[in-house]
Amino acid sequence: MALVVQKYGGTSVGTLARVENVARRALRTQAEGNQVVIIVSAMAGVTDKLLGLAYEVSEKPDTRELDVLASTGEQQSAAIMAMTIHKLGGKAKSLLGHQVKINTDGAFTKARIHTIEGSKVRSTVKDGHIAVVAGFQGLNAEGDITTLGRGGSDTTAVAIAAAIEADVCEIYTDVEGVFTTDPNICASARKIDRISFEEMLELASLGAKVLQIRSVELAMKYGVPLHVRSSFSDGMGTMVVGEEGLEKVVVQGVAYDKKEAKVQLINVPDRPGVVAKIFGELADRNVSVDMIIQSPSREGGTTTDVTFTVPKTDLTQVRDIIEQTARDVGGGAIEYDNDVVKVSIVGLGMRSHAGVAAEMFQLLSSEGVNIQAISTSEIKISCLIASKYTELAVRTLHDGFGLDKGASIVPPAH
Amino acid sequence: MALVVQKYGGTSVGTLARVENVARRALRTQAEGNQVVIIVSAMAGVTDKLLGLAYEVSEKPDTRELDVLASTGEQQSAAIMAMTIHKLGGKAKSLLGHQVKINTDGAFTKARIHTIEGSKVRSTVKDGHIAVVAGFQGLNAEGDITTLGRGGSDTTAVAIAAAIEADVCEIYTDVEGVFTTDPNICASARKIDRISFEEMLELASLGAKVLQIRSVELAMKYGVPLHVRSSFSDGMGTMVVGEEGLEKVVVQGVAYDKKEAKVQLINVPDRPGVVAKIFGELADRNVSVDMIIQSPSREGGTTTDVTFTVPKTDLTQVRDIIEQTARDVGGGAIEYDNDVVKVSIVGLGMRSHAGVAAEMFQLLSSEGVNIQAISTSEIKISCLIASKYTELAVRTLHDGFGLDKGASIVPPAH
Repeated sequence: MALVVQKYGGTSVGTLARVENVARRALRTQAEGNQVVIIVSAMAGVTDKLLGLAYEVSEKPDTRELDVLASTGEQQSAAIMAMTIHKLGGKAKSLLGHQVKINTDGAFTKARIHTIEGSKVRSTVKDGHIAVVAGFQGLNAEGDITTLGRGGSDTTAVAIAAAIEADVCEIYTDVEGVFTTDPNICASARKIDRISFEEMLELASLGAKVLQIRSVELAMKYGVPLHVRSSFSDGMGTMVVGEEGLEKVVVQGVAYDKKEAKVQLINVPDRPGVVAKIFGELADRNVSVDMIIQSPSREGGTTTDVTFTVPKTDLTQVRDIIEQTARDVGGGAIEYDNDVVKVSIVGLGMRSHAGVAAEMFQLLSSEGVNIQAISTSEIKISCLIASKYTELAVRTLHDGFGLDKGASIVPPAH
Repeated sequence: MALVVQKYGGTSVGTLARVENVARRALRTQAEGNQVVIIVSAMAGVTDKLLGLAYEVSEKPDTRELDVLASTGEQQSAAIMAMTIHKLGGKAKSLLGHQVKINTDGAFTKARIHTIEGSKVRSTVKDGHIAVVAGFQGLNAEGDITTLGRGGSDTTAVAIAAAIEADVCEIYTDVEGVFTTDPNICASARKIDRISFEEMLELASLGAKVLQIRSVELAMKYGVPLHVRSSFSDGMGTMVVGEEGLEKVVVQGVAYDKKEAKVQLINVPDRPGVVAKIFGELADRNVSVDMIIQSPSREGGTTTDVTFTVPKTDLTQVRDIIEQTARDVGGGAIEYDNDVVKVSIVGLGMRSHAGVAAEMFQLLSSEGVNIQAISTSEIKISCLIASKYTELAVRTLHDGFGLDKGASIVPPAH
């Protein structure tokens, strides 16, 4: 007998017919001899409707109350799910954040889970019930309702799986699993059968939207095996697991992210402290800077160029900071570019294979794609390019590294 | 400085504009130097929509989950109200059943409050916040959400007022206060300025719908002064208070109730235990019998007739029980009548004034209205009549006892 946590997203519970579908799947899992916990999101569209109401009240609604309001979406779907399981002859109990005791910090609308008591969920499933936990919600130290941010139900699921030491945490979604890249722009994208936590984390950070990043971090930290599956089929989905026993493929997937803008400071005085001042100001305002390039000095070492990327949503704020700072340091021209995309390749095998970056640059340049900035980690390489090349670049890298034929174990020969 | 509890019903918070109206009233009350607690119902129509969804899932939805679902309506309106107060520059915090600790029994969908901890509400208003409490909801001993039945927010308001020893509990509704009778059928109905708990309790039991009966019982038990007012005007409304200092009017109001049906057993054997058996069976099935008349024996003392009333909603069940019982005791014919109405007059002064019942019968008979059954308490007299006479009877009693000219202090001379 296994202890199985299943998480169902908003589209998976989007209609009463789909709720019934999920209820039958949970009952089937239970009938196979397992103890079953399910975590539900709000029915598709409900959260947006609730937030819409809040923004009708006020442009800047009080965040404590925003969470009280938004959390009703999951409360409703948990109740409806439990009712549906009852109707089908099963036993179920809905459990809310304050009942499970999902304790979070006090950051309304984006709280982080501190601790979860497993006892209530455990005793519920031991009784033969399916425990239906409302996702996305917790409680801060004062007993106020908090929510975990978009996609927070994934995090609820992983945290509960960790707390009750579940054998697996299944994340049901509206796609068949994690893909080598976005199938909407690359027809040869393939479903990945097994992927490591680290790779999944990079892919999620780089714009792949299947899992909330924090849920992957948490799963990695507590070693909770994740299983990403479709709630509309019986496909095998994607297992996200520890590195042990995984083939270390060089390139596991290709991701792209259009959420960043490029900022260029041209002819900045090249003296100690100038660049530090610029990024210090940005950090003070909580702007996260991603890729940074400083060109070699020009004009006999008196000036330099600095290029970096920031979230597009922060661009207005960044403009104010940068223009002030440029005046302060007596700097030169500033240019902004919104039409950029970051394309990335991710794979554990990069750690031990040289030449992957060179291969990536070669593939892009062979299609005439100019690389504007580069950043790397142990297991990923990202290139900033003009956004008009997005689809071309993704397809070129995907097939160039052989992902159309299964994940590449060694760099392809050229 | 007073501690004021204000309860707003579903129509009073039915739109965002009305919510803002309520928020302004609460802020005005606070600005006048009071500590303010408001209790909100779900926005008009929301509870029905949620219950509709539940009955779409199942004809007989699990009641535990029904309460989890239904309670989201008040949670949403509490959050929206608190946001609105914030937007207007005030301080507010929504508080749910599990945060206030409104402890109830375990009877889902119709729970009764055991205890309320006043500390959370008190500390919230002491901080200068308006405490916005979600009505209708509580928590049983297991920590499950319970709801208090239709109109339950009135009870929440009174119970909180009692727990925090509030100076007054204002019940805001869509009418100007408590009326001498239903203004929809009697144009000369007048608003009552002051009424006793006992009278209000009788009027509520007899079909006047302004306040939930349980809330009046609770207010009487704890001596919480109730103030029924309109949220759409600044009228003075109706004070519901203890008897002390109240003029003891003979007839304070006229009520009518169409929710009962008449059952007649004709030629039942007149021997000991037969009538007891009939009502024992009904009691065993939780059918509440209201008016009962046993006619004098006939046919030399061998048979009798028994007439009584039961809720129309129980009539199918009653039919089964009675027909079986009639067979068991070898009883006679059974007749049912759905077309009846109970009209009642209520007034504290009846205790000390004789002749009120005779006057009531006289007024009805002068209009040719036949009385089918009578029941009385210390402060009320009810007559069962054919429902076609409802309006005529209500108007005749209302004006006959001088309520069109202000409450009658002594029975009118005839």
